[in-house]
This record gives sequence, structure tokens and C-alpha cells, in this order.
Amino acid sequence: MQSSEPGLVCLGVDPGLARLGYGLVRQSGMVVRALAYGCVETGPEMPFTQRLLCLYDALGEQVENRSPDFMCVERLFFGRNSTTAEYVWQARGVVMLLAAQRGLSVLEPKPSQVKMAVCGTGTADKTQIQRMIQRLLSLDAIPRPDDAADALAVALTGLAFYRHEQRIRRAACP
Amino acid sequence: MQSSEPGLVCLGVDPGLARLGYGLVRQSGMVVRALAYGCVETGPEMPFTQRLLCLYDALGEQVENRSPDFMCVERLFFGRNSTTAEYVWQARGVVMLLAAQRGLSVLEPKPSQVKMAVCGTGTADKTQIQRMIQRLLSLDAIPRPDDAADALAVALTGLAFYRHEQRIRRAACP
Repeated sequence: MQSSEPGLVCLGVDPGLARLGYGLVRQSGMVVRALAYGCVETGPEMPFTQRLLCLYDALGEQVENRSPDFMCVERLFFGRNSTTAEYVWQARGVVMLLAAQRGLSVLEPKPSQVKMAVCGTGTADKTQIQRMIQRLLSLDAIPRPDDAADALAVALTGLAFYRHEQRIRRAACP
Repeated sequence: MQSSEPGLVCLGVDPGLARLGYGLVRQSGMVVRALAYGCVETGPEMPFTQRLLCLYDALGEQVENRSPDFMCVERLFFGRNSTTAEYVWQARGVVMLLAAQRGLSVLEPKPSQVKMAVCGTGTADKTQIQRMIQRLLSLDAIPRPDDAADALAVALTGLAFYRHEQRIRRAACP
């Protein structure tokens, strides 16, 4: 379902292999609304390459259906001894490839920048962020699962970054 | 150029973002021959997502032209403070996605297993490996660049693993 409504649409992604969160948010003037959000799950019973393909196809379908103007993909940080980091990085590579194939530019905020953009502080906790997402997007309830809520926060960050950049451009070229 | 010659073809990949080595090797009976090898380079002047797309397209072209039967992609190991690991992992994700999209199974040997398969010892140095590749593939010179030579070693490892698996199967089901 493509929408012909005006506004700017950002696809936010919280990358993962077992669970990849996505959230599409449209901004029209001062109003932001969630178009779609969810979580793509792939189980360990599938071969690794098939799990990557499953994520790629599911996310590609969202791009196809909602025609985002750009993407926002969260940066990843892992502890030194993480055993899953390499798999999540590879899943993120697939997301980044999809962006290039569809001609979409990608913003890559750090987790602290997402917290700052949504809650005004880089140290906000998960509950604060989720309540803020519910409020900003005028949702009846906190979006579930957590991965989808995280992805909506990333999409909101993308739109905030975009607005910030526009303001800088206008200030430079009045 | 597709070849109708009989035999088993393995596409070996030495993953990287700035330089990705590939090597296609065909085994017919006891004879192994290099069909093609090279290195795809992407420069830092390109956006990261475009670099991934460039690697994906170049490797996809090799798959299209040479119709490998399976792939062999080396596992990666990085030191704790590597700043490039995350980029190389993402590039590897793109290679693994391509395998899934083309329906190719993937073997993933460790660097020590590649050394063992090609030289008979897990501690062989680069020069030993390169000379052995030249000899095994009856090449006039050591293949260049290093990334291509590494990828040919990975492809030879894939074929060795495959033969080993076949022997086990025959032993189990005589």
C-alpha cells in the first residue's frame, strides 16, 4: 500500500539477526505518525544465509509498500566478548545493501543520539523512550515488541536529524 | 561465459570492504584449475552503502558468468581494538546474502583450516601458501594480488572439504 499523502517518510531500523525491528514514520509539517512497525524474526533452526535472506526480503517488502524517502539505521556497540556481534554486523550489512539498491540515503545515529533525539537526554532508559514514542506518535499504547519501539525511535531520530540539517541549510543560504 | 565442462566449481571469497578477493576453481577428477580470480576494490571516497553495492554487483557477476556449485567464504578474526572489523563484517554479510539468493551453499573455514588444506599445516606463512596455490593450480606465476591468491586458497579448501565429506558419506553408505 503506497500512500500519496504529502510529507517525509523515514524507515528506522534496529538491526539484529534473530530480531530486526523496523518502523516507518511520516512527518507532515509538525505532525508525525507511524505508518507501520514490527519485528522480523529468524530462528536458529534456519541456515545463517537463509536468515539474512529472510531479513532482506521482509525489509524490502516494507520499502516497496511504503516508499520511504530515506533510512535511519542505528549504529551497534558490543562488549569485547560478544559472541553474537559478528552475526548482527552481517545482518546490518544486508540492511545497508538494501538501502543502496533502492537509492535511499542512510543516517546512522548512535544509541545515545537516539535517546537524545527522542527524550532530550542521552541517558534515558527504555521505559522513558517507549512512553515518549507513544506520546510523539499519538499511539493508543506503547508499541510492541521492544524491537519495533526501538526502530520507531530510530525513525524519529532520522526525521529530527533531517529537520536539523534543513535548518542549517536555511541559515547558511537565507 | 558459462562453461559446459564437467566438474565441480567452487567460488572462494576472502571478504573485505576496501579489497575483496575472489577465486573460482574447477575440480574435474584429480585436476584442479583456476577459472577466474581477482580483487574487487572500493575506495573510501564512495559512501559506505555504495561500496557494499559495488562488492555485491561484482561478485554477482562472477556467479552469473561462472555458475559455481557452491561457495567458500573465509571466517574472520580481528584483534580487540580493530576499527575496521565492523565494516568488513558488513561486507561479509552482503556476500552471504548473495549466496542465499543464488541458492548456493556456503562453507566457512577458519584461516588455519585454509592453511592446513592447502599446505598441510595450520601455521604456513603467506609465501608458502602462494607457492602451493601456484603449484596446485599449475599457474605460470604466483597469482596477484594477494587477496586473489587468498581467495583461490579458500576455494581449494572448499573443494577439499567437499571431497572429505563425500568420502565420509561413501564410508557410511558403501
